Amino acid sequence: MKNFNNNIRKVKPYIPGEQPQEINVIKLNTNENPYPPSPNILEVLKTINDDCLRLYPDPESKILVKALADFYNLNENQVFVGIGSDDVLAMCFLTFFNSLNPIIFPDITYSFYNVWADLFNIPYKYSVLDKNFMIVKEDYFKENGGIIFPNPNAPTGLEMNISDIEDILMHNKDVIVIVDEAYVDFGSHSALPLIKKYKNLIIVQTFSKSRSFAGVRIGYAMGDSELIESLNNVKHSFNSYTINQITLKLGVEVLKNKVYFLDTLKKIESTREWTKKELRKLGFFFQDSKANFIFARHNICPAKELFEALRNQHIYVRHFESARIHDYLRISIGTQKQMETVVSFLKDYLEYR
Amino acid sequence: MKNFNNNIRKVKPYIPGEQPQEINVIKLNTNENPYPPSPNILEVLKTINDDCLRLYPDPESKILVKALADFYNLNENQVFVGIGSDDVLAMCFLTFFNSLNPIIFPDITYSFYNVWADLFNIPYKYSVLDKNFMIVKEDYFKENGGIIFPNPNAPTGLEMNISDIEDILMHNKDVIVIVDEAYVDFGSHSALPLIKKYKNLIIVQTFSKSRSFAGVRIGYAMGDSELIESLNNVKHSFNSYTINQITLKLGVEVLKNKVYFLDTLKKIESTREWTKKELRKLGFFFQDSKANFIFARHNICPAKELFEALRNQHIYVRHFESARIHDYLRISIGTQKQMETVVSFLKDYLEYR
Repeated sequence: MKNFNNNIRKVKPYIPGEQPQEINVIKLNTNENPYPPSPNILEVLKTINDDCLRLYPDPESKILVKALADFYNLNENQVFVGIGSDDVLAMCFLTFFNSLNPIIFPDITYSFYNVWADLFNIPYKYSVLDKNFMIVKEDYFKENGGIIFPNPNAPTGLEMNISDIEDILMHNKDVIVIVDEAYVDFGSHSALPLIKKYKNLIIVQTFSKSRSFAGVRIGYAMGDSELIESLNNVKHSFNSYTINQITLKLGVEVLKNKVYFLDTLKKIESTREWTKKELRKLGFFFQDSKANFIFARHNICPAKELFEALRNQHIYVRHFESARIHDYLRISIGTQKQMETVVSFLKDYLEYR
Repeated sequence: MKNFNNNIRKVKPYIPGEQPQEINVIKLNTNENPYPPSPNILEVLKTINDDCLRLYPDPESKILVKALADFYNLNENQVFVGIGSDDVLAMCFLTFFNSLNPIIFPDITYSFYNVWADLFNIPYKYSVLDKNFMIVKEDYFKENGGIIFPNPNAPTGLEMNISDIEDILMHNKDVIVIVDEAYVDFGSHSALPLIKKYKNLIIVQTFSKSRSFAGVRIGYAMGDSELIESLNNVKHSFNSYTINQITLKLGVEVLKNKVYFLDTLKKIESTREWTKKELRKLGFFFQDSKANFIFARHNICPAKELFEALRNQHIYVRHFESARIHDYLRISIGTQKQMETVVSFLKDYLEYR
């Protein structure tokens, strides 16, 4: 054991879903959008010149911040951008969760929350979802150092209604409350209108899912200008130039084609509802997901077995080993055709196993 | 004062050099490369398809790590990549500087070091450069929690020789030593060969300067595989998907054209030496910079006055207000033609002021 090891931070990193390098797989394991972003996007790449490569980007990402502010009808000082919502959330943990009291988040939720808390030595407590996997709002009424939960929650896909979120806010005026809306565009309701009334509320969203931009890395936070200023101060104490020149231009462009965006969402939602019906017929059980995935267990067949069987067919879904959810698979919603293939395989498999 | 403010981290961010939006400026304020990256780079953008946008990038950035390992004749587990060297250095501070003893860095150096230390509550002490702005190696022989310095140093441009660096390493086997080689390609000597012998040494480099990629954001660290693993664990506890799909491809490509790369460096070094001669004739004083900038004061004319006069001509250089260096300007090396314009303006200005 070398002495310098004592100075090294020891952490257990988050494990993302795999990114298989084979082609012709059906990839339903990381909640990507099965449809490409609007066709005008690739045109932007033709406008990239040497100066975009050679010169530092605007450290304040102004063109992207402005495009987001316009889209959501906010002021520019109410918007913060980062390298995907993971970057934004990491910055939020570092900026807002500096109390000796534990922060609270659900026991079944995005499994990066406890990783960030561990990384930054932030004390935390889980609130236990009820037996239907719903968040129990009263769990968040006790003294705490901050609150974070996704809405809809992941990997359950379940939405909490806005009046319950407001109830949590009313009970938590002395801490920062973060609502992680990575999946909100697939038919849920955003808590964004509440930022006017609650100066301690941060909404985090991402281009990765609903805007087909997982490969580009853009996430953003919205909230009162004072919170956004604190986030920016921390960001500028970490890395001045984060979002590169090409990404800034792509991000501005992807916000433009709203018709295409809404059309894509409609297709995914419709395929999700179709998939739910078919999975129920096959003996799957799940709550009513409002995200671009379904979190399901089968009445008879173990999740791990299904996971492996699907994988052998080059169909990738996500399986978590943790307690309470190891019987479940998280299946992202692909194209209608992909989901028909999946349902048809599952039908055969469950019949003949 | 709202109570939730108590939980918010208060920091004083790093202030980067400005990125003027006017065109036709001579931009010598942020040490960018005046030449574009090799012409084959823009071709890469034509290979970007919808899947590059839609799907998450490889969280381990394998193709870029491999390209760097091949370039430097290292194993892949000796290379870590990030969003510019600022991201890499931020990760290094978080990963390696966790002692109660203060870390040490020069009093005149990259002004982000104390910002990272403040952000992560890392205690630090300055070692004072001598009157010729050289690092005094003995300052680093006392007990400490880690060491970082740039070589060549910025904004001085001065190189410490490798045997002095090795002397520092021999006196510091119990802490991590980081050599920040952002400017090493412009004619200095890299300490990279020492990573075999010193398992506590990290070398940080960047594509921003010598590879004309400031707008793309790629930096990297090289060191013993155990240190790189610790860095990766922290990175994967912060953000899984950092370098996006397009950037990964651009980064691999820019490492390919070595002839073009070396040719560009030669042009910049030759212009630097020409500029030194001319500035001396005009009454400027400076040490012998080995970077792509010159850190100079004028014998008579105050730096602030020159900074403003240049700015009025749309020539941007960098001026720092801090003690000991407020008499200096940091002037990045542009193209030969740009430097001729600058020298000619300064000559007239100093003659007729």
